[in-house]
Amino acid sequence: MIGMNNKLLTIGNVIRVEEDGAEIDILPEFCGGLRGIEAFSHLIILYWLHLRDSENERKTLVVYPKRHAVNVETGVFACRSPSRPNPVGLCVVELTDIRGCRLRVRGLDAFEGSPIVDIKPYIPRADSVQRARVPDWTGRGPAI
Amino acid sequence: MIGMNNKLLTIGNVIRVEEDGAEIDILPEFCGGLRGIEAFSHLIILYWLHLRDSENERKTLVVYPKRHAVNVETGVFACRSPSRPNPVGLCVVELTDIRGCRLRVRGLDAFEGSPIVDIKPYIPRADSVQRARVPDWTGRGPAI
Repeated sequence: MIGMNNKLLTIGNVIRVEEDGAEIDILPEFCGGLRGIEAFSHLIILYWLHLRDSENERKTLVVYPKRHAVNVETGVFACRSPSRPNPVGLCVVELTDIRGCRLRVRGLDAFEGSPIVDIKPYIPRADSVQRARVPDWTGRGPAI
Repeated sequence: MIGMNNKLLTIGNVIRVEEDGAEIDILPEFCGGLRGIEAFSHLIILYWLHLRDSENERKTLVVYPKRHAVNVETGVFACRSPSRPNPVGLCVVELTDIRGCRLRVRGLDAFEGSPIVDIKPYIPRADSVQRARVPDWTGRGPAI
């Protein structure tokens, strides 16, 4: 456990996931934190993988990544498995609409009901590494 | 609070921050999760902003971003302020060396002693959005 104050707060929830996008409702008490967010085209969403929040899933340290062409055991810190010690999911999404405390986004790989942990604006200078090296099993290499 | 199991575990610690890089020690019980990580050139590090883990800092919803040319109140979800409801920091870093459970990385904007919450491999296809739109106050625009 992290310090005395390591509690994660739910700042919002994924309320709808559809083919063409997802909706996130930020709780009224945190809605003020959205001020100015419309100036960004993309966001980083951190959410709680609530369906993997069990003692057993959180003890998982190696998995067989789904997209692996051959079965190679891979550490959970070397893949994006939802089973991991701290079940925090991360998605880069496109912000397509905002109305009051409701965000509409494209590209959120979460389930309905997932609690939102944090939202950060995507800033390419810090967050975009186009030519990062990845192993073959991740599929196509970086688009260069 | 998020469910019954919302506790964040410390999976490692930032043990050194220097001009040319930082060192992270993963705790022995989580070290198995690193298997295969050397195949990635870049990682996403999630860490606990322990110096901002106070009730007051976590109530902060608007700030004046440091790099703002003019003072404009900005929501914490629209900037990368360390004061936010859930003090989780995020950095994209370059992995420069790995020895046992110790990672050496470049670009980690954390303090010594920050607990590590999660490590994810950086996969450009999902994580790199080179032309994302940002407001002027973030400094130079995206390098296109």
